[in-house]
Amino acid sequence: MTVEQRGTREGPHHVSSSATDRRRGPERLEAFSDGVLAIAITLLVLEIRVPPAEDLADPNKLIEALGALWPSYLGYLISFVTIGIIWANHHNLIRLVDRVGHGLILANLLLLLTIGFLPFPTALLAATLETPSAQIGVLVYAGTFVVVAIAFNVLWYEIRTRPGVLRRDVDAWSVAAISRSYRLGPPGYLVAFVAALINPALGMGVIIVLTLLYLLPSSSGA
Amino acid sequence: MTVEQRGTREGPHHVSSSATDRRRGPERLEAFSDGVLAIAITLLVLEIRVPPAEDLADPNKLIEALGALWPSYLGYLISFVTIGIIWANHHNLIRLVDRVGHGLILANLLLLLTIGFLPFPTALLAATLETPSAQIGVLVYAGTFVVVAIAFNVLWYEIRTRPGVLRRDVDAWSVAAISRSYRLGPPGYLVAFVAALINPALGMGVIIVLTLLYLLPSSSGA
Amino acid sequence: MTVEQRGTREGPHHVSSSATDRRRGPERLEAFSDGVLAIAITLLVLEIRVPPAEDLADPNKLIEALGALWPSYLGYLISFVTIGIIWANHHNLIRLVDRVGHGLILANLLLLLTIGFLPFPTALLAATLETPSAQIGVLVYAGTFVVVAIAFNVLWYEIRTRPGVLRRDVDAWSVAAISRSYRLGPPGYLVAFVAALINPALGMGVIIVLTLLYLLPSSSGA
Amino acid sequence: MTVEQRGTREGPHHVSSSATDRRRGPERLEAFSDGVLAIAITLLVLEIRVPPAEDLADPNKLIEALGALWPSYLGYLISFVTIGIIWANHHNLIRLVDRVGHGLILANLLLLLTIGFLPFPTALLAATLETPSAQIGVLVYAGTFVVVAIAFNVLWYEIRTRPGVLRRDVDAWSVAAISRSYRLGPPGYLVAFVAALINPALGMGVIIVLTLLYLLPSSSGA
Repeated sequence: MTVEQRGTREGPHHVSSSATDRRRGPERLEAFSDGVLAIAITLLVLEIRVPPAEDLADPNKLIEALGALWPSYLGYLISFVTIGIIWANHHNLIRLVDRVGHGLILANLLLLLTIGFLPFPTALLAATLETPSAQIGVLVYAGTFVVVAIAFNVLWYEIRTRPGVLRRDVDAWSVAAISRSYRLGPPGYLVAFVAALINPALGMGVIIVLTLLYLLPSSSGA
Repeated sequence: MTVEQRGTREGPHHVSSSATDRRRGPERLEAFSDGVLAIAITLLVLEIRVPPAEDLADPNKLIEALGALWPSYLGYLISFVTIGIIWANHHNLIRLVDRVGHGLILANLLLLLTIGFLPFPTALLAATLETPSAQIGVLVYAGTFVVVAIAFNVLWYEIRTRPGVLRRDVDAWSVAAISRSYRLGPPGYLVAFVAALINPALGMGVIIVLTLLYLLPSSSGA
Repeated sequence: MTVEQRGTREGPHHVSSSATDRRRGPERLEAFSDGVLAIAITLLVLEIRVPPAEDLADPNKLIEALGALWPSYLGYLISFVTIGIIWANHHNLIRLVDRVGHGLILANLLLLLTIGFLPFPTALLAATLETPSAQIGVLVYAGTFVVVAIAFNVLWYEIRTRPGVLRRDVDAWSVAAISRSYRLGPPGYLVAFVAALINPALGMGVIIVLTLLYLLPSSSGA
Repeated sequence: MTVEQRGTREGPHHVSSSATDRRRGPERLEAFSDGVLAIAITLLVLEIRVPPAEDLADPNKLIEALGALWPSYLGYLISFVTIGIIWANHHNLIRLVDRVGHGLILANLLLLLTIGFLPFPTALLAATLETPSAQIGVLVYAGTFVVVAIAFNVLWYEIRTRPGVLRRDVDAWSVAAISRSYRLGPPGYLVAFVAALINPALGMGVIIVLTLLYLLPSSSGA
């Protein structure tokens, strides 16, 4: 993690040239991504708002108001688990990285951009789920997950195809297995999106099923 | 912490296979958990709100309004200390981990999910403690701690029973001692919950006593 | 990263004297800066607010309201990408640091101060872009970027001119190349500021072009 | 930083016993503290609020409203610099730590508790500085700094007096020099507090002078 360690590994010639060619190991990319993911996952709770003062004074009203917050709890739960799974998968990908180049930084930034955005569609979902606008809330939510899943595949594409990024000791079989499992993410959430076009509750059902599937040990997508 | 170090330790064969079996060392799990805990603990202050403009203009009113915020200060204090203790205990547990598997990631995510939720019941407690709904606030607060304590025990159960997770140099006596101390968490907060059913102030009293107990050097629960 | 490692590297004599002369390696400076940058980038989403209740109930109104949030999306996008680029460049600079002294800590704190401030002008931009005050919003936004770019150059100046800070294996050619690329930041955003004086849309156009330029692999400024 | 490295350093016997005696190296304490400090410093910007909609529509009103936010800018500036200095000093202290025990964890948690609280008095200061309640805002702000400075001295006391915490290669002269410089913190902010009792502007003046003094290379207190 120290500059000295890296310097030793790469030799002094590389270090001075690296000032311009931007290549480096994945340690700080990992630390920064971990930070953004940890913050995005923890900010989700800020969207669960304490009921207004008039509901607080009356215990019966408060119980009702806390129950009516169920879309907020559901949104917190799904978004939290999804970001948690993305974190685990992100770690699995970055472990396979040998050298970090400009393309990888951009692809990773794109992924973080979509994940950092998640608290907004989560809050929108929670605010609309019991209104006539529920469909819009679910569509935006599912649509954001489609974009996140695409960004995850872009990152993996960048790692696996850009020369010198993937570690040489990763075999073709592993690469193919990862590709297979991640490839299911975008169409999966697209199904949720289309289902929400038919019926918002159906769309939510597909999202919940996808979240549960990603919790299985054998699957690993985004 | 670098992929190279780990690669050296595990051998190249493992690294490529690990892409699919998800096993790894606990370093990044620790870093991510630290991040979530640090953020959850720091977000607590956002629930202490500056009094409204009409109270700000009049010094006497402002002093009164700042005094009336005592439930916010108390909630900040208890939740901050509790998350701080959880952090210390979490660190103690993760140090005993040899390899991180799927079950551990899920158990850890469950714990983070409950801790990341804490700012909400803390805010609810602060908003209700001086209203007729105080009992609801204390019940939700104590109930959340019951769930956190259970999640902590689930994490420990996962570490100690899943083959290959616990480090081999940890002796049975240490395992038993940890189990004993953590086992007290859920019933302890359940007592606080039941006490709050009788009287909210009594429930708060039990929570405060539990928090102080956890500050003792010999105890170590959640 | 451990004290022991550093102690071994520097010898015990240095360590005890360092308690007063404040010199040290850049590891923890990097970790702290990464933390601040990761949080600032993730807080941006909090400025995108869910439309008010009266818009939520009516799907047509909600679609319109979500569309009217475009300045918020644009602000999120530009600020996120800019902080992301600053993070990458910051990493490139800190890698060239051998020993951290007092001046570097202050210069780095100044940079973090300006970046930590970014969510405010971003929110102001989003709130004003469709009002008669758009010009003020763009001027404050561009002006903040001018200050960030100056702070970045101050940090680089501190690294490259203060004796003992720059690593000895960094050659003069690399230093000159970095200086050249960073030097373009302040005048670039000053152009955006002046353009906004003429017309706010023109100012935003210059900012967007600068952001896109910074995404190119060959450029590396702030 | 890995468990294996630490295990190698301490021997397997220690590791198993450490499960109950809670001793450990300062790495994760540092990481957690860095996280809390980085978040507290970055949350400060959330207290600078965009002017209300009625001021946004009229450029002249908006300029006036942005100018009237000066107490928010000032509070952001002072609190940001103060937390930044605390971070640098905290790092200097933790570097001298050999083994982390229960007392150090508690003393560190106390310090983080006071620093994590800082966004609230900062917001209160900003909200009151131009009202008749300015004195209360400054008193709470200065009072919080007194408590932070005391907590910092408690942490240093814990490190320097508890057997086995301080590294053995730190000489008595360094310890005395640190003690001398930190000892000035509590009375310094107490002077600011007393000055604010006479006149709030005078109190702010003392706080600003103290902040500038702490930016000098020779001083190092909190």
